[in-house]
Amino acid sequence: MKPPVSAADPLVLFMPSGKRGRFPKGTPVLDAARQLGVYVESVCGGRATCGRCQVVVQEGNFAKHGIVSSNDHISPKGPKEERYERVRGLADGRRLSCSSTIEGDLVIDVPQDTVINAQVVRKAATDRVFERNPAVRLCYVEVDEPDMHKPLGDLDRLKALLERDWGVKDPRVDAYLLPQAQKILRKENWGVTAAVHRDAESDRPSIIALWPGLHNEAYGIACDIGSTTIAMHLVSLLSGRIVASAGASNPQIRFGEDLMSRVSYVMMNPDGREAMTNAVREAISDLIVKVCAEGGVSSDDILDAVFVANPIMHHLFLGIDPTELGQAPFALAVSGAVHLQAEDLGLKVNRGARVYLLPCIAGHVGADAAAATLSEGPHRQDRMMLLVDVGTNAEIILGNSQRVVAASSPTGPAFEGAEISSGQRAAPGAIERVRIDPETLEPRFRIIGSEKWSDEEGFAEAAERLGITGICGSAIIEVVAEMFLSGIISEDGVIDGQLAAKSPRILQNGRTYSYLLHDGSPRITVTQNDVRAIQLAKAALYAGIRLLMEKQGITEVDTIRFAGAFGSYIDPKYAMVLGLIPDCSLDEVKAVGNAAGNGALMALLNRTHRREIEQTVQKIEKIETALEPHFQQLFVNAMALPNKVDPFVKLSEQVKLPPKKSPSDDASGSGEAVPRRRSREERAARRARE
Amino acid sequence: MKPPVSAADPLVLFMPSGKRGRFPKGTPVLDAARQLGVYVESVCGGRATCGRCQVVVQEGNFAKHGIVSSNDHISPKGPKEERYERVRGLADGRRLSCSSTIEGDLVIDVPQDTVINAQVVRKAATDRVFERNPAVRLCYVEVDEPDMHKPLGDLDRLKALLERDWGVKDPRVDAYLLPQAQKILRKENWGVTAAVHRDAESDRPSIIALWPGLHNEAYGIACDIGSTTIAMHLVSLLSGRIVASAGASNPQIRFGEDLMSRVSYVMMNPDGREAMTNAVREAISDLIVKVCAEGGVSSDDILDAVFVANPIMHHLFLGIDPTELGQAPFALAVSGAVHLQAEDLGLKVNRGARVYLLPCIAGHVGADAAAATLSEGPHRQDRMMLLVDVGTNAEIILGNSQRVVAASSPTGPAFEGAEISSGQRAAPGAIERVRIDPETLEPRFRIIGSEKWSDEEGFAEAAERLGITGICGSAIIEVVAEMFLSGIISEDGVIDGQLAAKSPRILQNGRTYSYLLHDGSPRITVTQNDVRAIQLAKAALYAGIRLLMEKQGITEVDTIRFAGAFGSYIDPKYAMVLGLIPDCSLDEVKAVGNAAGNGALMALLNRTHRREIEQTVQKIEKIETALEPHFQQLFVNAMALPNKVDPFVKLSEQVKLPPKKSPSDDASGSGEAVPRRRSREERAARRARE
Repeated sequence: MKPPVSAADPLVLFMPSGKRGRFPKGTPVLDAARQLGVYVESVCGGRATCGRCQVVVQEGNFAKHGIVSSNDHISPKGPKEERYERVRGLADGRRLSCSSTIEGDLVIDVPQDTVINAQVVRKAATDRVFERNPAVRLCYVEVDEPDMHKPLGDLDRLKALLERDWGVKDPRVDAYLLPQAQKILRKENWGVTAAVHRDAESDRPSIIALWPGLHNEAYGIACDIGSTTIAMHLVSLLSGRIVASAGASNPQIRFGEDLMSRVSYVMMNPDGREAMTNAVREAISDLIVKVCAEGGVSSDDILDAVFVANPIMHHLFLGIDPTELGQAPFALAVSGAVHLQAEDLGLKVNRGARVYLLPCIAGHVGADAAAATLSEGPHRQDRMMLLVDVGTNAEIILGNSQRVVAASSPTGPAFEGAEISSGQRAAPGAIERVRIDPETLEPRFRIIGSEKWSDEEGFAEAAERLGITGICGSAIIEVVAEMFLSGIISEDGVIDGQLAAKSPRILQNGRTYSYLLHDGSPRITVTQNDVRAIQLAKAALYAGIRLLMEKQGITEVDTIRFAGAFGSYIDPKYAMVLGLIPDCSLDEVKAVGNAAGNGALMALLNRTHRREIEQTVQKIEKIETALEPHFQQLFVNAMALPNKVDPFVKLSEQVKLPPKKSPSDDASGSGEAVPRRRSREERAARRARE
Repeated sequence: MKPPVSAADPLVLFMPSGKRGRFPKGTPVLDAARQLGVYVESVCGGRATCGRCQVVVQEGNFAKHGIVSSNDHISPKGPKEERYERVRGLADGRRLSCSSTIEGDLVIDVPQDTVINAQVVRKAATDRVFERNPAVRLCYVEVDEPDMHKPLGDLDRLKALLERDWGVKDPRVDAYLLPQAQKILRKENWGVTAAVHRDAESDRPSIIALWPGLHNEAYGIACDIGSTTIAMHLVSLLSGRIVASAGASNPQIRFGEDLMSRVSYVMMNPDGREAMTNAVREAISDLIVKVCAEGGVSSDDILDAVFVANPIMHHLFLGIDPTELGQAPFALAVSGAVHLQAEDLGLKVNRGARVYLLPCIAGHVGADAAAATLSEGPHRQDRMMLLVDVGTNAEIILGNSQRVVAASSPTGPAFEGAEISSGQRAAPGAIERVRIDPETLEPRFRIIGSEKWSDEEGFAEAAERLGITGICGSAIIEVVAEMFLSGIISEDGVIDGQLAAKSPRILQNGRTYSYLLHDGSPRITVTQNDVRAIQLAKAALYAGIRLLMEKQGITEVDTIRFAGAFGSYIDPKYAMVLGLIPDCSLDEVKAVGNAAGNGALMALLNRTHRREIEQTVQKIEKIETALEPHFQQLFVNAMALPNKVDPFVKLSEQVKLPPKKSPSDDASGSGEAVPRRRSREERAARRARE
């Protein structure tokens, strides 16, 4: 295929991939890109009509590469390119790579439309560029007219040209196209655009859609089906641009708030599975309508879809009874990647559209965790990365390019504000930031809807206007951590009743005490039970992390990624103070927003990412916390504030810890002696596990 | 895969394939067969439970192969095989090849259940043995139980075992199975039978059905959709046995008797295409119910289906508007083989069942002709074979392993008895055999329902009982040929009016004459128009054959095959007398019954036959008679009785031709001078072409 090259031929470097090679003068830039495996979109097949193959010449001396690149080294615009510029317009410096040829050394920039991670997670918009190699391509061909001497069928002649012009070998044709093909081929005088799907290199390609003439629009959806929220992106498969994003509540909530109650609903109701499957599919169909309207896109132009979800959402979406996932051994019906047609799921998109679901890692660690792994890439780097997605279960991935381990830990709903006496959802009037003076034990706080702290001028007006209504999710961690830092609660998590003498903020409730955060209406307090709930949740999370660290044989991690909403809300410093996460430089603790959604996007835009995550998931070592006898011990140890097992070398440099009350409690790192009075927590912990 | 072998290892020869190889002692016979590519069915995967892998040792000295084969050279029955024999029974000499090992030189007979071509065509039952390699296989595996340490999904563990035990690599799973898989796997304690479909070696296999435990039944249907009749076989994919056969009228007849009138119906009626598609699919569904009832088979066990049809039936069955096929350039929507799911066509069989349609050769030469080619195999032999399927169009294939050419010629319906004044369908009372005494011009004939000739004793009673009602299709050729042999009609096809003086059988009708075959009620005559209709039909057929012979550069053929009902009815001698077919030894003219149906069977039972016919069809040279200027001349020449262009060397030795009336007409082989008085026929011929 590649013509013989000599050292005298021009050297061409493509950016940002960095792929390079020598090509004889006169080689079209698009051909050179293809030969090097650089993905440059083209629908019209070099006819200079679709405008998808635009590139930019980078001028300058690239001494490191031995290239002096100049616009003189590319052929001047010919009549076809000039016609395109006249009719459709061509931005400054842009060239059609199909119509411009290599005439000297060149550095060619392949513009990658920036993928904008829209506001799925509050204040966590990230801009990322994904290299594209979608599973669906548009291929324009001009089919030969029928010839009685060579009576090949219309579709057979189409196939022959797809092979000749696009290298698509012997594709299957979707059944629904058979009755339509002849009219489509004749409508624009035998010019036709075929959408060709091919997931893996080893797959036979399929013609999944046909349009008369040049069709220049192809979209995909990337969707994260969460237990609470469904988030969807609509993306151009041709440019990689996110055209629209939308989210909706998962309507399955009416069948059960959390995952296990939905499994119970299926077990108790004969039609439960079907009702929940229909509910989530309808919600997804509604979201498709919504993103299409927002993006001005016809749903018929959606040709590919990638879904990620936790195992129970994954199964319910596919119509699989999740009962097995509700009990040991938590058997998935299918753990590998799933390939379907959109029709199988009743999705209202192009009739030939394909669907891909990322693999699940284990019965508690789903395709959403696989997608987050794909997005953050612990397996792509040498540093030890901890990736945590906190929900009712915390999904924990720990590893690097050598080895990745994964587990799920039952944190319960406390981190989401449930089971907290004054907890409420994030809404105007909810307390979102808290500081406690360690001397006076007086609090300062901020509420959602106002920039002022409670001790600043102007706060009273805001409080009057908005009300002070409760503590939102993000502030729960913060207030408990501040109570610890100010000495209100001990390392055991007990609110110190002796302080009631010092401060009216410490209130007695029978045998336990609580902290009065705001004496208004309602009265906002942090009770001993609230502290216990947070302790249990953080102990579960930390014990899971610690278990994986032991599997990896490490005592600290290099970098920490918080995926999901939780990570965006909380302040990493307080997460570390409370001992949710292991010791790590605070600079290396990052909230990455909807990493699962980003992973879905990557799999949508580049099918090689599908192979990457399939292979990675096969290699990930799955740790089932329920099978690890040591987990219980780690859990009990992690009840302390901060965790007993951590040396706190770095944390002590970053956060001022309270003075130790009792030197005997400071036997850090041992983890063997569990004081007698922890037995209640221990029992609670056991209950939480059962 | 194959272990290293030495010349000292036993030599094993498999019959009837003749494949052979050396294997170390102790190799299971089934493994040896697999390594040599000998197809031996096995569902249970060597557990000695399905009994599908039976073989027979042929004892004796096979000197030609250097093998002395003996039952001592195979291991004695072990406990598993003995258990099978006790429980299920094992015919004398049969062994389970999975459980018996090679201990010395062996000749192994792989019993091929005889495929009985049931009475699709009257008196043409043929027994044929097809080597089996179906696209769908049953694979029994015992799946590992779920393991929390290795949390692979249930289907993923099934896949792993399909690869380990059956070499099925990374199959896709049909979407409809996802919700069912977990229950199926658990029902028989993780024993499960998977139906795996793989059409081509290069295809990714698919799991299309699942059953709990060992499932030992898999069927396919082979169906020929004719314009008039739909014929179906139900076949065991495991044994190759035809379990039931049935036929039904094509209900599309109510929309139009012949193909062109059905195309017209589509063009005139907006819902015409849909109505005809539904009609044929319903008829096929009814036939499926019928063959399943007859064979005692559940339609849910039908996993594969092969259809053949002429191009217009093919398109209507697939839901494709056949309008393009009704006009030049007769463009097929699709000519290559078509792969579908039974669901796409609404067929009521197993939900995962697959459908395969053989390729069409050209706009007038369909998948039925391709199937007949596959069955008779001109491309598999060196002799020049003429394969003719006569209907409203005659499909003509001529060739050998070097080169195959094909054409369609518009014979019209005369051969089927339509447009013949006393023509009727084959039913009791119809004249089916005719002889005319060349001296007296008196006829003798036989009627369907009686063994007696009309001049024999006892005929009168039969005639009284049955009536003498008309001339059936097969007798039309015979009576015209006998009229020619007895001198009643001239070489020009004119009934000789001068004979009216000699015989009262010659009747005058205005300017033409007719022959009185039977003076009863009704009166049965052969008119000048009847003779002309037969002349036109045979001229079209013969001109098409002659055109292909010219393309091949030959003047005679080695062997002739008549496919379809027509070939079974007629006497080859009379076909040759009238000049329907070229000169050939009469021994080499054979009626092969429903060759198209046989070809469909072959493609059903052996997927390598699918590749064979796909490749053959690509190589067949398609001749469009309408584009050949020479065809008109051949047609006019072929109006004569016998054809002017044939030297009649062999025919003259086999059939006593009538004395020539006019020596000047005997300039055989010239074909240039068309006598003026043929101009009427010529005009008729042109009309027939337009």
